[in-house]
Amino acid sequence: MKEFELIAHLLPSLPTNATVVVGAGDDCAVLDLGVPDKLILFKTDALVEGVHFNSETPPEKIGRKALARCLSDIAAMAGTPIAAVVTIALPEKFDPGCIARIYAGLNKLAAQFGVAVTGGETTTNPERILISIAMLGTVERGKQTLRSGAKVGDAIFVTGELGGSLAGKHLDFEPRLAEARWLAKHFAIHAMLDVSDGLAGDLRHILDAGKVGAEIWQSALPVSRVAKVRMRSPQPGGLAESGLPSLPPKHLPAVLAALTDGEDFELLFTLASAEAVKLLDAWRKDFPRLRLSCIGKIVAGEGILVRDKTGSHKLQLHGYEHFNCRDE
Amino acid sequence: MKEFELIAHLLPSLPTNATVVVGAGDDCAVLDLGVPDKLILFKTDALVEGVHFNSETPPEKIGRKALARCLSDIAAMAGTPIAAVVTIALPEKFDPGCIARIYAGLNKLAAQFGVAVTGGETTTNPERILISIAMLGTVERGKQTLRSGAKVGDAIFVTGELGGSLAGKHLDFEPRLAEARWLAKHFAIHAMLDVSDGLAGDLRHILDAGKVGAEIWQSALPVSRVAKVRMRSPQPGGLAESGLPSLPPKHLPAVLAALTDGEDFELLFTLASAEAVKLLDAWRKDFPRLRLSCIGKIVAGEGILVRDKTGSHKLQLHGYEHFNCRDE
Repeated sequence: MKEFELIAHLLPSLPTNATVVVGAGDDCAVLDLGVPDKLILFKTDALVEGVHFNSETPPEKIGRKALARCLSDIAAMAGTPIAAVVTIALPEKFDPGCIARIYAGLNKLAAQFGVAVTGGETTTNPERILISIAMLGTVERGKQTLRSGAKVGDAIFVTGELGGSLAGKHLDFEPRLAEARWLAKHFAIHAMLDVSDGLAGDLRHILDAGKVGAEIWQSALPVSRVAKVRMRSPQPGGLAESGLPSLPPKHLPAVLAALTDGEDFELLFTLASAEAVKLLDAWRKDFPRLRLSCIGKIVAGEGILVRDKTGSHKLQLHGYEHFNCRDE
Repeated sequence: MKEFELIAHLLPSLPTNATVVVGAGDDCAVLDLGVPDKLILFKTDALVEGVHFNSETPPEKIGRKALARCLSDIAAMAGTPIAAVVTIALPEKFDPGCIARIYAGLNKLAAQFGVAVTGGETTTNPERILISIAMLGTVERGKQTLRSGAKVGDAIFVTGELGGSLAGKHLDFEPRLAEARWLAKHFAIHAMLDVSDGLAGDLRHILDAGKVGAEIWQSALPVSRVAKVRMRSPQPGGLAESGLPSLPPKHLPAVLAALTDGEDFELLFTLASAEAVKLLDAWRKDFPRLRLSCIGKIVAGEGILVRDKTGSHKLQLHGYEHFNCRDE
């Protein structure tokens, strides 16, 4: 059973109560605790040594990444982060200086976004470091952006560039908090999330929640420079599995990286096509340094089609869970 | 460096903001998010296989305990639990049926206390199960009970019985939520926490926060039946280290267990001595089945004195972190 399936199986049985506006299954839970103009966002996320970082990763960057992932989830809801509590599980003989460095990286990013760190626990995990962070945020009532809500005819947008995050961006990415709030304030965003498991995998969450399909324009994908430069070869069988036509091998792996690499932490969202040009125009004025790409449209049906010069092709890949590009 | 020292070292450097009423260092953080009559409580806690449970522990009880510990922290603040988010880290080949059983135990307790489970993540921890839960709660403004606030002359109370929790209670304990709210509603509680690391260790948190000392009456300690029955022998050096006089060995270990065993999850609190009899009287009417013991008084100075028939003796033990009783 894959992680997605397991979680899907557990969700219906989770207890709920009258405060819950949106329960498990979106980027954050949304709660109504009686703040007059705001709803509460609630999220937890964990980083594990050997999975999300390795023993060579500088401790400051581990702490930064642990917090940044939660901030990206708050951004996905168009929220403002407020407070975090941190649990670090680590071997008993771990160097206290390293814990201080993990907190230094975490604290610096927290301070940058005005987040209070209101709990810091340590516990034992003999074999490896594990950091779990929970975050509270707020969002203006009615402005929360969910995974559900995409409509046939919507334009699909993504911020920044995609692919090759593991070359470095996964430790240094900027959570798109200001951008997300700007989007929710100025435009009727239909569906939004942050791309953490790969564009194809995360887009499927939007499609499943909205019971719609998508057509992605291959030439419009904002493939990152690192994904283009660091030539990749797909796993044995990967190319055939993808369902994409045989393009020049130099080109295809970078596109695949953009579609399936995890940890990009960019915003992926849809809004009515009629608003698309207005959005691109306004975005360039307010965020001149961050690329915004219209990469396709929401269509009837299900799944993802990728359109290139030769036509439209069904994409079979889900994201890094089912397919990994490897460096040559 | 011990865990307490490490955390104490990190606390001053944690970022804060205008929402923080009480930051890291109490049982929960207290935040003011603008709910008219309430403050928000925020807490995280983790359970690790081999530390807080073992491979023989039924999965339902693991899930129950993980949630119950957080509920006990909400109780320590006289709060009401609202929502929890759960991260389970586990080996990749872990049986999905076991995860379902962990959630079954957790969900049952959550439903019992009206808590919504609004996030359920899984991640990888190859060698052992680790569960991290974060919890949100609320407390009436002005009714939050902190670790600080104990005053010289206060009476010291503890609910339930102490010692020997690892024989079973640590998996089945009842978080004292209703009792704590009742206390905060009807009495001016000066300081409160839940006993998780052993009475002696946790009482020291109250003493340090209030810059006071305590005298504990040995004969008033509510030693649990299991601590009395299951004879224990202290570690080599433990008896001498404790500073307690040499009592009959059959008696002393049970008292030591009550003073130092972890995981009791009872409420420990102080209030003005003049209120003590009124409290004991009212408690018996409203909670006839739960023992409430006045175990001593707050005194000037620092540290813990234990008074027995032979006089008053300085207690050197901190709790399970520094001293472990072992079964014979």
